[in-house]
Amino acid sequence: MSYLRNCWYMAAWSDEVEAGGMLARRYLDEPVVLFRDSGGKVCAVHDRCPHRFAPLSKGKVENGTIACGYHGLTFDGCGKCVFNPHGKILQSMAVKHYAVAEAYRGIWIWMGEPETANLDFLRDLSFLETAPETAFSKGYLCGHGNYQLFVDNILDLTHVDFLHASTLGSGAFTRTRAKVAETGDRVTILRDCLDEVPSPLMRSIRNITEEDRVDYWNNVEWSPPAVMTLSGGNVPSGADREGPLNNMNTMNAHIVTPETGLTTHYFFATTRDFAVDDAEFNEKFARTRNQIFSTEDEPMIRAQQERMGDKNLWELQPLLLRIDEGSVRVRRKLEKMIEAENSTRS
Amino acid sequence: MSYLRNCWYMAAWSDEVEAGGMLARRYLDEPVVLFRDSGGKVCAVHDRCPHRFAPLSKGKVENGTIACGYHGLTFDGCGKCVFNPHGKILQSMAVKHYAVAEAYRGIWIWMGEPETANLDFLRDLSFLETAPETAFSKGYLCGHGNYQLFVDNILDLTHVDFLHASTLGSGAFTRTRAKVAETGDRVTILRDCLDEVPSPLMRSIRNITEEDRVDYWNNVEWSPPAVMTLSGGNVPSGADREGPLNNMNTMNAHIVTPETGLTTHYFFATTRDFAVDDAEFNEKFARTRNQIFSTEDEPMIRAQQERMGDKNLWELQPLLLRIDEGSVRVRRKLEKMIEAENSTRS
Amino acid sequence: MSYLRNCWYMAAWSDEVEAGGMLARRYLDEPVVLFRDSGGKVCAVHDRCPHRFAPLSKGKVENGTIACGYHGLTFDGCGKCVFNPHGKILQSMAVKHYAVAEAYRGIWIWMGEPETANLDFLRDLSFLETAPETAFSKGYLCGHGNYQLFVDNILDLTHVDFLHASTLGSGAFTRTRAKVAETGDRVTILRDCLDEVPSPLMRSIRNITEEDRVDYWNNVEWSPPAVMTLSGGNVPSGADREGPLNNMNTMNAHIVTPETGLTTHYFFATTRDFAVDDAEFNEKFARTRNQIFSTEDEPMIRAQQERMGDKNLWELQPLLLRIDEGSVRVRRKLEKMIEAENSTRS
Repeated sequence: MSYLRNCWYMAAWSDEVEAGGMLARRYLDEPVVLFRDSGGKVCAVHDRCPHRFAPLSKGKVENGTIACGYHGLTFDGCGKCVFNPHGKILQSMAVKHYAVAEAYRGIWIWMGEPETANLDFLRDLSFLETAPETAFSKGYLCGHGNYQLFVDNILDLTHVDFLHASTLGSGAFTRTRAKVAETGDRVTILRDCLDEVPSPLMRSIRNITEEDRVDYWNNVEWSPPAVMTLSGGNVPSGADREGPLNNMNTMNAHIVTPETGLTTHYFFATTRDFAVDDAEFNEKFARTRNQIFSTEDEPMIRAQQERMGDKNLWELQPLLLRIDEGSVRVRRKLEKMIEAENSTRS
Repeated sequence: MSYLRNCWYMAAWSDEVEAGGMLARRYLDEPVVLFRDSGGKVCAVHDRCPHRFAPLSKGKVENGTIACGYHGLTFDGCGKCVFNPHGKILQSMAVKHYAVAEAYRGIWIWMGEPETANLDFLRDLSFLETAPETAFSKGYLCGHGNYQLFVDNILDLTHVDFLHASTLGSGAFTRTRAKVAETGDRVTILRDCLDEVPSPLMRSIRNITEEDRVDYWNNVEWSPPAVMTLSGGNVPSGADREGPLNNMNTMNAHIVTPETGLTTHYFFATTRDFAVDDAEFNEKFARTRNQIFSTEDEPMIRAQQERMGDKNLWELQPLLLRIDEGSVRVRRKLEKMIEAENSTRS
Repeated sequence: MSYLRNCWYMAAWSDEVEAGGMLARRYLDEPVVLFRDSGGKVCAVHDRCPHRFAPLSKGKVENGTIACGYHGLTFDGCGKCVFNPHGKILQSMAVKHYAVAEAYRGIWIWMGEPETANLDFLRDLSFLETAPETAFSKGYLCGHGNYQLFVDNILDLTHVDFLHASTLGSGAFTRTRAKVAETGDRVTILRDCLDEVPSPLMRSIRNITEEDRVDYWNNVEWSPPAVMTLSGGNVPSGADREGPLNNMNTMNAHIVTPETGLTTHYFFATTRDFAVDDAEFNEKFARTRNQIFSTEDEPMIRAQQERMGDKNLWELQPLLLRIDEGSVRVRRKLEKMIEAENSTRS
């Protein structure tokens, strides 16, 4: 499988890698181990000792270095051997390392050559960092299905009306045509639903009925390789969207990273501008979201992938609908970027 | 794998597909979903939405149509799109459908082009339909092993003497040479065992001992693709086979349908002309049969397939015995039919 | 995968095949069933009936022959058909058999042509046979990983200092350079550790502390295909190694046989010259060893294989250290033997 390499993939939430701990995870089919050096900086190296190919993650992290648990070769966060119990350290005793950045409560890995890593390419997600704890939640799941199916899922929110009909859907997204736009390397998908039926979740939060009407809007913004924000809100039908009492805005991140060609790391987070200090609501809201992603989205994408087998989307000649505009643009854009990258490399 | 397509495969027992319900099952490596239209007629369509390839069986059946659970495209039993929530319905919005027939308590699917479906090719199994409830039972299992191994198993009943020695076997089938005959597209295998040892099951039903002698007979009749009836009976040695008190006849169906090249849908049913009103006996008899098929036949065929790996029977050069006559004739016949069908198609 | 065939592989411990019983096991990717003939001699035949390819191990052993459980063909230990319930016995009714030897509490199988089997090639392991019961234990596990990784594991005992640091390791093996030698078809790896830190297990057995010093030695001796002995001992630092009170010698066998290219039968045994009559110590010592092999060695080798995927060691260009000398010599030696055997055959 061909991936975009010169870009930042989300590797983990920051708190998944403690000082002195490690996290073994596969990205783009490569086994990687993350750990922190003695200064607390996150490092990433190939999770395979160059000696006999034991996973370094079966060893231990000590003083910010990682020692193989089989015969003891020890490496620093740049992959340089710093201890060979069996003789001299040679230049060749190195393990591949990856550039890593830590920002916005997350750890980001650059899968191309570390020298080419460029922080300018890291998407600004500072809203995640500044969110108050009682109005923030995040989660992770490792799902079955190619990562692009997880991207498609967010880029076409009409699925909400069918797959999440009992919580997030009311038919409004399906009834409202999206505006798709491209700016630089971003693709945005805007929906403005006027005088619409509130979703079950909205009814329960706003304490309104199915007869009440609301205005909804949401804006999905994709950037490569697979980072999406989803901001949205709603007000009683016709009310001022900027009004301090009425608006209920959430700001969400949906970030996916290929584990293998058929499995995906799915990171998600949400913050909001209502019930900001309500820890109980926050907890319940997080639980509902986790539940939806793990029992509705992931199983559908898994089933979709199962039906697609080892074919890619185009080979199967999908029947495209107008709702696919966003995801098709993103797929085409990403394909071009991968192609460009591959032609540069060769 | 190459299959005969222009023929009726058993898809399910009728009661497996309720009104408003659906059944997802794979036939000949193709995922299919069965459901009933508003008139109760069974329909079968490819279990993969042409839009984004979600299984339609993860959606819902309403008013005799099936709606995709991901983005809502809805199809009728002929695979025609009848509702597109996202725009106009175009001619191209269709999902492959299959011709289906319902008869003899079963649902039958034609895996070739629906236009070529021909009810004349549906084997008459009306004895299943007319059987009284207290003298009838049926079952289903999904077994490991190519479907032809399940066919071979029935076409050579000497296995009963070894594999089912504690219930159905007494050595009589092994001691008695079978007469194999071909008429049209049928292959029949007749055995007439005279003055023979009764099987353990027969002893318990007739309340006789191992010293008693009986006459047994049975007739296996195969028709393509893999439909077999097995009629048989027994009387005290030398007694009139048509006599009203002595004969104990059963009439059975063993019908198999490839799920994949290595797994098989196995449908079985039995009726009889003795203890016809005895519901308790009926229940016990059904349980014994289920037990035998699932704990003796299926595990043996699974093990056989495991040893064969991905080779077919001929590649492995089996040591053929005279007991293989029936199954070899059937295999050759089916191979010719498949070859003929393929040459017509191309 | 290419294996050395004209040699003795350990197939089982003798007590794994009882009179009248059988043992189904795969060697070098071939399914084999072991059983005893009427004289008690162990026999081995291909575990696949030549008729319909059912595993013979699903049949039964009677009077030293094995009968297929599907249609009753019966074979003796040489693979000759001795009973065909369905007709005459023909010359062609045979199943492949293997030469087998029983010695040193074990059963050994020759995977080449039985006529070429040569008992001279069976490594003398009589120490296993003569060991008193209270100073002997043996075990078996089926591990994941190519058999050569299991061999490498023993041929480089420095792993003990890292993988078994809480029991067998003290750093002594790592600090002491091994002497590797080749004599005929043997490779030996000697280590003589002087005035060294005792291992945790040694401390507990000798009732000494970490401050005490000992002299250790060990000698690993490999012979093809994958039979290794490991003899070793220790004395208080500077003491007479032959002294009757001080020395604590163990003599061990580590024998591996490929099950498939990625899984391995691992047979191990130990005897000793101390606490010889102490059944309780014997039991505890055996438990500790089993624990180490199954919870430390096997998982590491499994993880190593997982990282290697379907590549062999050389393709991955391992970073060789001086501790790899023994295992590299053995790999090269075995490769040459396999090559020689293959060139003879063709």
